[in-house]
Amino acid sequence: MRMEIDIDKLVEEFERGSRVAVARLITLIENDSDSAQVVLDRIFSRTQKAYRIGFTGPPGAGKSTLVYRLSKYYRALDKTIGIIAVDPTSPFSGGALLGDRIRMQELTSDPGVFVRSLASRGSLGGISRCTDDVADLLDAFGKDLILIETVGVGQSELEIAEKAHTVVVILVPESGDSIQAMKAGLMEIGDIFVMNKADHSSAEVAAREIEDTLRLKDTSEGDWRPRVVLTSAIENRGVEELATAIEEHREYLLTAGVLEKKRRKNLYSRVRENILERLEERFLNSELVAGILKKRMEDVYALKVSPYRVARELEQYLKIDI
Amino acid sequence: MRMEIDIDKLVEEFERGSRVAVARLITLIENDSDSAQVVLDRIFSRTQKAYRIGFTGPPGAGKSTLVYRLSKYYRALDKTIGIIAVDPTSPFSGGALLGDRIRMQELTSDPGVFVRSLASRGSLGGISRCTDDVADLLDAFGKDLILIETVGVGQSELEIAEKAHTVVVILVPESGDSIQAMKAGLMEIGDIFVMNKADHSSAEVAAREIEDTLRLKDTSEGDWRPRVVLTSAIENRGVEELATAIEEHREYLLTAGVLEKKRRKNLYSRVRENILERLEERFLNSELVAGILKKRMEDVYALKVSPYRVARELEQYLKIDI
Repeated sequence: MRMEIDIDKLVEEFERGSRVAVARLITLIENDSDSAQVVLDRIFSRTQKAYRIGFTGPPGAGKSTLVYRLSKYYRALDKTIGIIAVDPTSPFSGGALLGDRIRMQELTSDPGVFVRSLASRGSLGGISRCTDDVADLLDAFGKDLILIETVGVGQSELEIAEKAHTVVVILVPESGDSIQAMKAGLMEIGDIFVMNKADHSSAEVAAREIEDTLRLKDTSEGDWRPRVVLTSAIENRGVEELATAIEEHREYLLTAGVLEKKRRKNLYSRVRENILERLEERFLNSELVAGILKKRMEDVYALKVSPYRVARELEQYLKIDI
Repeated sequence: MRMEIDIDKLVEEFERGSRVAVARLITLIENDSDSAQVVLDRIFSRTQKAYRIGFTGPPGAGKSTLVYRLSKYYRALDKTIGIIAVDPTSPFSGGALLGDRIRMQELTSDPGVFVRSLASRGSLGGISRCTDDVADLLDAFGKDLILIETVGVGQSELEIAEKAHTVVVILVPESGDSIQAMKAGLMEIGDIFVMNKADHSSAEVAAREIEDTLRLKDTSEGDWRPRVVLTSAIENRGVEELATAIEEHREYLLTAGVLEKKRRKNLYSRVRENILERLEERFLNSELVAGILKKRMEDVYALKVSPYRVARELEQYLKIDI
């Protein structure tokens, strides 16, 4: 019960606008999924107001610097900002160059900005849940914009597309190999493509390549046509153009009714993930199933029976009833 | 029933050594998980004999070329080889430079080698299952070594560590940023680290950096100490050293009894994944749960109730019984 009381007190302080309370609640959410549920139950009705923008791309593409520049731009327009970094290489997570860290400190000293990095080790499911929950918390705290930075290769990119309303894919003009790779996974999820480090001579060629690839995409009349923006985060060029492209995408989502669909999809997949976690926990840990599973695994190890057959056998013990 | 008969016939041809049957069975495994189960049930008792080596690293690190060189090396020792590419940028998957593709064709014309790339779009779970099943199939087909190439950033790297007996992480001497990134995820899973493109002047510095990082790892007496090998896949240098390091790791696994533990862990997680897929399918699609879920999702969308609360409610309908 002591824990519950602490959470109540923290949520009260959170409601009075305490940044310390936000930080502590995030730590609770990160470390303990039971507490996360208590917190979310309490604050959920005040969420889903902030606009969520995801930033993804390969390590070293300059995601953090661009997030910093964009934050400064939005702050000048008096918008409040929450930044969530789900990227082990982000300077927000402490793992980067001195110049980056200094810029980040400048941001964190602004009361209109709340920055938090999430540990990216641990289970995929855990990080995914945590990103959603922390975004909700910053949303309920009243932030206008939530910027989510995530390292975008592999499968995490698919997740950001479910969490963010606008996905910005940040690329650098590089060797053909890497661009090929990025395209493979990232072309499908980007609403806006940024070719960063545009001072590089090959940037315009690379940007055209991306535009060509995008043109091949099967889009119907009225669909969003992804934008390509050239930026130089270091020199602070192209940031306004990027903000304009984001705003255009937001307006498209609102006009086409897609924003509400995206919100619903995210909420549904959170319910689904949470149900599956509970099913796993209860089913595999039940005395009946755990006992049979232990015995049958020996047969699998001895190659007497396939993994599939054992799964089929165990499925029989699942009953659904009031 | 027709499908079952076809599978029987294919498995018979497979047993007689038909490469065409292998290719067709893999297509079945890829496209249809029900058929995959029938196939696996039939061949499972003959699996778990091949040694499985995983190759992971960032796009453009030269994974495919190194897999090619190593395959040639093993073929000269008369070992048979199965290659599985789970990487959209792999030349095995058709997405690469001409020189690579020519090398790959040379491999595929050798009857001692069977090469297959797996579609890497689709659900993470689906690809993961498929990789295991195809590895089993090539194993039962009598291949001595299974080489699995996977793009290693994000979370897929954690999977290769469960599927392969030896994990080779391939890096290139590059900008500090990228190496940081790679380290974050890859340092923990590599049994052997390859610094490829060792003609590059910075290769030795980068290799030393990796060795330094490895030294910080908390290893007990008798634990495997990851090796660092310098290679140049293009110039065919360092390949024998890599093969030696792989052999040393295999001997370590056998002596320390770890190989059997790895095999069991992989088999257990396959049973577990398959059970969870079945639970999800049956639970969420049951009339009772689907009906309530649909209704309660409207309350979630209206912010009346949190995703967690709905998941808790639905959990109540799970019963476990004979």
